[in-house]
Amino acid sequence: MTVAKDTSASGAGRTIISVDAMGGDRGPATVVAGISRSAKKNPNIGFILHGPADELQKLVARRKYLAGRVEIRDARDVVTMDDKPSQVMRHGKNTSMWSALDAVRAGEAEVCVSCGNTGALMALSMVRLRKLPGVNRPAIAVLWPSRNPQGFNVMLDVGADIRADETDLLQYAQMGASYARNGMGLERPRVGLLNVGTEEHKGRAELKAAHDLIEAVAPKSKFEFVGFVEGGDIPGDTCDVIVTDGFTGNIALKTGEGTASLIGDLLKEAFKFSPLSRLAALLALTSLRRLKKRIDPRRVNGGVFLGLNGTVVKSHGSADATGVSAAVKLAFQLARQGFAGKLAARVASANDLPQDTAQENLKDGEQE
Amino acid sequence: MTVAKDTSASGAGRTIISVDAMGGDRGPATVVAGISRSAKKNPNIGFILHGPADELQKLVARRKYLAGRVEIRDARDVVTMDDKPSQVMRHGKNTSMWSALDAVRAGEAEVCVSCGNTGALMALSMVRLRKLPGVNRPAIAVLWPSRNPQGFNVMLDVGADIRADETDLLQYAQMGASYARNGMGLERPRVGLLNVGTEEHKGRAELKAAHDLIEAVAPKSKFEFVGFVEGGDIPGDTCDVIVTDGFTGNIALKTGEGTASLIGDLLKEAFKFSPLSRLAALLALTSLRRLKKRIDPRRVNGGVFLGLNGTVVKSHGSADATGVSAAVKLAFQLARQGFAGKLAARVASANDLPQDTAQENLKDGEQE
Repeated sequence: MTVAKDTSASGAGRTIISVDAMGGDRGPATVVAGISRSAKKNPNIGFILHGPADELQKLVARRKYLAGRVEIRDARDVVTMDDKPSQVMRHGKNTSMWSALDAVRAGEAEVCVSCGNTGALMALSMVRLRKLPGVNRPAIAVLWPSRNPQGFNVMLDVGADIRADETDLLQYAQMGASYARNGMGLERPRVGLLNVGTEEHKGRAELKAAHDLIEAVAPKSKFEFVGFVEGGDIPGDTCDVIVTDGFTGNIALKTGEGTASLIGDLLKEAFKFSPLSRLAALLALTSLRRLKKRIDPRRVNGGVFLGLNGTVVKSHGSADATGVSAAVKLAFQLARQGFAGKLAARVASANDLPQDTAQENLKDGEQE
Repeated sequence: MTVAKDTSASGAGRTIISVDAMGGDRGPATVVAGISRSAKKNPNIGFILHGPADELQKLVARRKYLAGRVEIRDARDVVTMDDKPSQVMRHGKNTSMWSALDAVRAGEAEVCVSCGNTGALMALSMVRLRKLPGVNRPAIAVLWPSRNPQGFNVMLDVGADIRADETDLLQYAQMGASYARNGMGLERPRVGLLNVGTEEHKGRAELKAAHDLIEAVAPKSKFEFVGFVEGGDIPGDTCDVIVTDGFTGNIALKTGEGTASLIGDLLKEAFKFSPLSRLAALLALTSLRRLKKRIDPRRVNGGVFLGLNGTVVKSHGSADATGVSAAVKLAFQLARQGFAGKLAARVASANDLPQDTAQENLKDGEQE
């Protein structure tokens, strides 16, 4: 893929992110506020922004950090949360989502960021960017707060496809390990296969087959395979990458998010209970903020589509400016790592020598 | 089933619970401490306790609340956490688990409680108690902290069987609704079918088939079917009963537990951070205790096996005395409701008139 580091609107040396301004629950003003935040923090970033040009021009003009760093691409249509993927694939040519992906396809930007409809974004990504040669099912990978030193684990697939056979699960293991290596600087990520027990005789037939396939390629692929793991290991420290099918992964992701959100709300209630507890809450404010920051889903906002010719970061539909900025940061990090190219090489030579190294990991080069 | 309210060791009018003293991580002393706690709180409860008679006699003799209320059944063998279910089914005749189930089979006790190996307990339960006529796959149901007024939702299956076809899912819906009606006093429980989206076109083929089956029987079966629900609805308030296969349910359960435990530990860390936050923690102690009590897994300890001729409550293997006592409380409540009989009638006449009513619900008759 051509590397785009210089476009008219963005100046030399900048990494260009293609951003779909539309389709998020909070509208384009929030997206522009988010990219403005990223632009302020990171001088090495530039944007191609897709949506209704007149509206976007007004929003961008108000942000001083965006001056000279945003190229606007006019797109009149919007993919809504209710649109069916099949519809969007047929009639979506004039949408901001299509336009945002095409900038990556054309090599003008390195990564695409969108807050829009996940199903439509995945379907359009498959059509516009195409699957990497040898990949049957692309996957969506997310970062999950964990007990590991790096603070997060990678889980995939969380919903690109509800099915996955043993070969798909093997590819998820390889792609997930590559993401952990490039995204978290883990030279030799530990990969676990999600199951209902850790004993090798347990679970579905395709899981036993996948277990043997992954075990066989692990040494060559430079990751450690820890075997079967359970739901409790997703936020745990027994492995760094959790591999599962998109049905199970999606349910696990949403169960975890829902549980965390329930506890957060109960915690707030508990602190409102009495004058004494309200005083305690006041004193505990910084501690609680520290905790919130540690597990704030906005800080790790962004599912990454793996297995395509190009990288797509799916931000939460409800993301606020902080969330959009976090997704842009992730997109920037992956672009700087040349992640798309490394992943492609990794998949192409799945059984040969490993292509990606942790030499230039994101933690070292971190910038926001 | 014969109702056992009078055995030599327990006195007239008592509800008898059959308790497997062995197989838990903390040994029989913890189990005896747990049933002693229950005996102290609830004068209407009696026990048949299974395990090595000499050891159990000593443990029971030390507890004054257990005097005259425990009949000990000598069983020399123990099912360990590593024993395979198939092994236990062939060679388990002399185990405390087998003996505990047989007391329910013989009608001497109404409910069996065990902290032992889940797979072995389910396999033995199927052999000794047999499946209810018409039930293909029994299920394990758990209570899950939720935003609903009753404080908990029912989820099943969480791991009795990794497979479930549309007919199984239909039976889970009926059994789960019956449990919610009898266990939580909900006259018309709302049942949801777990999927990766709430749109009717989404998900696996068996889920679409199950959706239509459940929708068709809901009016006759006196529950409300809310359609597909997502992982976030498990701790939510959109339904009271979440139906899924045992693979997905087990992963969701353990993911939720793991996430809650991670947040709890991070919360503790946050409060240890500085002298000020330690002071805050001190002041917030009662608030935090209140929260802990609300989501403490020990308070809702007990997966219930549904679909058998008799009720089995599976306590956590790591349960302490509080946890064992909670499992006994649940067993007592279900026995008092005549739950096993109501569930059997419900399954037998699945498409006829409903058999169980909320007239005498557990909240009213609650006693521990």
